[in-house]
Amino acid sequence: MKKNRIYNFNPGPAALPLSVLEEIKESFLNLNGTGMSITEISHRSKDFESILDDAISRTKRLLNLDDRFHVLFCQSGASMQFCMIPMNLLREGKSADYVNTGTWSEKAIKEARIQGKKIKVVASSEDRDYSYIPQNIQFSGDAEYVHITSNNTIKGTQWPAFPDTKGIPLIADMSSDMMSRPFDAKPFGLFYAGAQKNLGPAGVCMVVIRNDMLERVPDNLPTMLKYTIFSEKKSLYNTPPCVAIYAVHLVLKWLEETIGGLEKMAEINRKKAELIYSTIDAGGFYRGTATPGSRSKMNVTFRLPNENLEKQFIQEALDNDLGGLKGHRSVGGCRASLYNAVSLSAVEALTDFMKNFERKNG
Amino acid sequence: MKKNRIYNFNPGPAALPLSVLEEIKESFLNLNGTGMSITEISHRSKDFESILDDAISRTKRLLNLDDRFHVLFCQSGASMQFCMIPMNLLREGKSADYVNTGTWSEKAIKEARIQGKKIKVVASSEDRDYSYIPQNIQFSGDAEYVHITSNNTIKGTQWPAFPDTKGIPLIADMSSDMMSRPFDAKPFGLFYAGAQKNLGPAGVCMVVIRNDMLERVPDNLPTMLKYTIFSEKKSLYNTPPCVAIYAVHLVLKWLEETIGGLEKMAEINRKKAELIYSTIDAGGFYRGTATPGSRSKMNVTFRLPNENLEKQFIQEALDNDLGGLKGHRSVGGCRASLYNAVSLSAVEALTDFMKNFERKNG
Repeated sequence: MKKNRIYNFNPGPAALPLSVLEEIKESFLNLNGTGMSITEISHRSKDFESILDDAISRTKRLLNLDDRFHVLFCQSGASMQFCMIPMNLLREGKSADYVNTGTWSEKAIKEARIQGKKIKVVASSEDRDYSYIPQNIQFSGDAEYVHITSNNTIKGTQWPAFPDTKGIPLIADMSSDMMSRPFDAKPFGLFYAGAQKNLGPAGVCMVVIRNDMLERVPDNLPTMLKYTIFSEKKSLYNTPPCVAIYAVHLVLKWLEETIGGLEKMAEINRKKAELIYSTIDAGGFYRGTATPGSRSKMNVTFRLPNENLEKQFIQEALDNDLGGLKGHRSVGGCRASLYNAVSLSAVEALTDFMKNFERKNG
Repeated sequence: MKKNRIYNFNPGPAALPLSVLEEIKESFLNLNGTGMSITEISHRSKDFESILDDAISRTKRLLNLDDRFHVLFCQSGASMQFCMIPMNLLREGKSADYVNTGTWSEKAIKEARIQGKKIKVVASSEDRDYSYIPQNIQFSGDAEYVHITSNNTIKGTQWPAFPDTKGIPLIADMSSDMMSRPFDAKPFGLFYAGAQKNLGPAGVCMVVIRNDMLERVPDNLPTMLKYTIFSEKKSLYNTPPCVAIYAVHLVLKWLEETIGGLEKMAEINRKKAELIYSTIDAGGFYRGTATPGSRSKMNVTFRLPNENLEKQFIQEALDNDLGGLKGHRSVGGCRASLYNAVSLSAVEALTDFMKNFERKNG
């Protein structure tokens, strides 16, 4: 039983800024003088619409998006996007390119194939256990889009820069690094992120789609699976997940007003990652699993000399109020997720603990 | 600006029990001594699994479900179920019966047709503006299922009893009256409810499905659209909407432990409805829009002598801390939604106001 809040390195759902949690808590019985909770107000009320509009405008400002881009709030996570993307955007008789950098890429590929869609896996890092991001990829000239996973939560790799697809629309699952760094959105036809890492609580998925992609959407899709409906109805065709969108709006406000935007956020994230990777690299005790040039600034995966020490490390860390350090159940080992809301001091506490643990057990 | 909480008659998202909101608020920075918020804990942690298990067990107890029934937590509201039901349960070459009792039935019908599924509308109350529930319906002997809308939020009608389908599985959209009264679940193949009326905040949809229906699910559906996946993975194939499920679990606990179950809840709901309908029927000032035998105990729809008076009524009510009384934008008029969390004293305050308003303006 913890009396106080712990340092939370969970891979998602993950840490949120304390000031955001405090604001949700404060407003929880009476939001903005409505006399109702955010859970109780109408999604068609002025109060909710101003929250939604604010979340959209902040997203556009933070990512420097021009008017061709639409910000949508879908549900059912990135996993539903794996299905919606080929359904909406991969036209009859055409093919799309996919890059396979791990579990989440594989799932995206699987959902396109289930629908009988034609896709080509143009690059994969499976040969070395997904420990790196492929470079110098040859894309198909006639691909409808190129799908990548910008950050691989499980294997701890991240695209250092996005590939040049020579005008073919890029589509990226950015679930675990959305809003962690600035990037040029122009080459993207669509990018998306389950909120539960950098954006808010689980239960909402942000999708940013470019105008020209909307023209591909077939008429005869189920209504709730059509990007055009989300775009035309401003994500209000039916009742959206109001609480999750409210939290996202507060996180974006924190990013803009407290942190000062994505350049500043990226600088902090760089410092956090440098601190932990330099601790890993300093001795022979810890071993990073990702190839240095492909290392993720969001999910730092590492091993200890043996599994017993890993177990001991995770437990002792938790005893010291450092939580969420277990690697994904499919790969084992350790992982520290350093999303936006994880502060530099949290990472300092972790690296201090790592050094002590190494001294005692190395 | 309201300093205090108001009486909330919203149609959904809607009022939640104050004790539930207070518990969410209290635990918001540190849930059960985890040192983390419900927004921050892992969906694969013991803490979350016990919340999920508790929500499932309480649902089974409250609805008296036997082991053939599975309780699932989906996303994207009842609107996504309109699509998933025919996709999963209406097999190639077969047909299903639908009863049309208003907007939400129409949407369910539309989503089956979009998929090219064969359906038959066996009864409709469109002839009298959906003001009643059809009786003595002839169902097709070979229908795969019969789909009904148990309560019609917009038109204020509700099935007083469920039809005898002679063994054909019933499927019901119970979004606006789930858990408001006990019923015999055995004839149902599936029933579902967007949470944002009687169950919790928007962002989660409860689906209860019977074993034999799961056998119909085709293999080649997108993973996130398959009931079998939700059932096999206990709604944890991907990250579920943890906060919304946590709130549902607290609402169900309140229903069981504070209210005392669905018989008791139904008794309170009956009293609330009687109070307001008797106020409507007492003079000629208010006019109920639903046919008496089909009146909803959840959504009471009524008109005043003219639209100006309706506008004035809604505004003065809000000035008196009675909110959410505007009729649906598609029909106008007034509507008081009396979901489980709306107390008898809230309804007394409303009927007192109605009598006063009638005295001054009648």
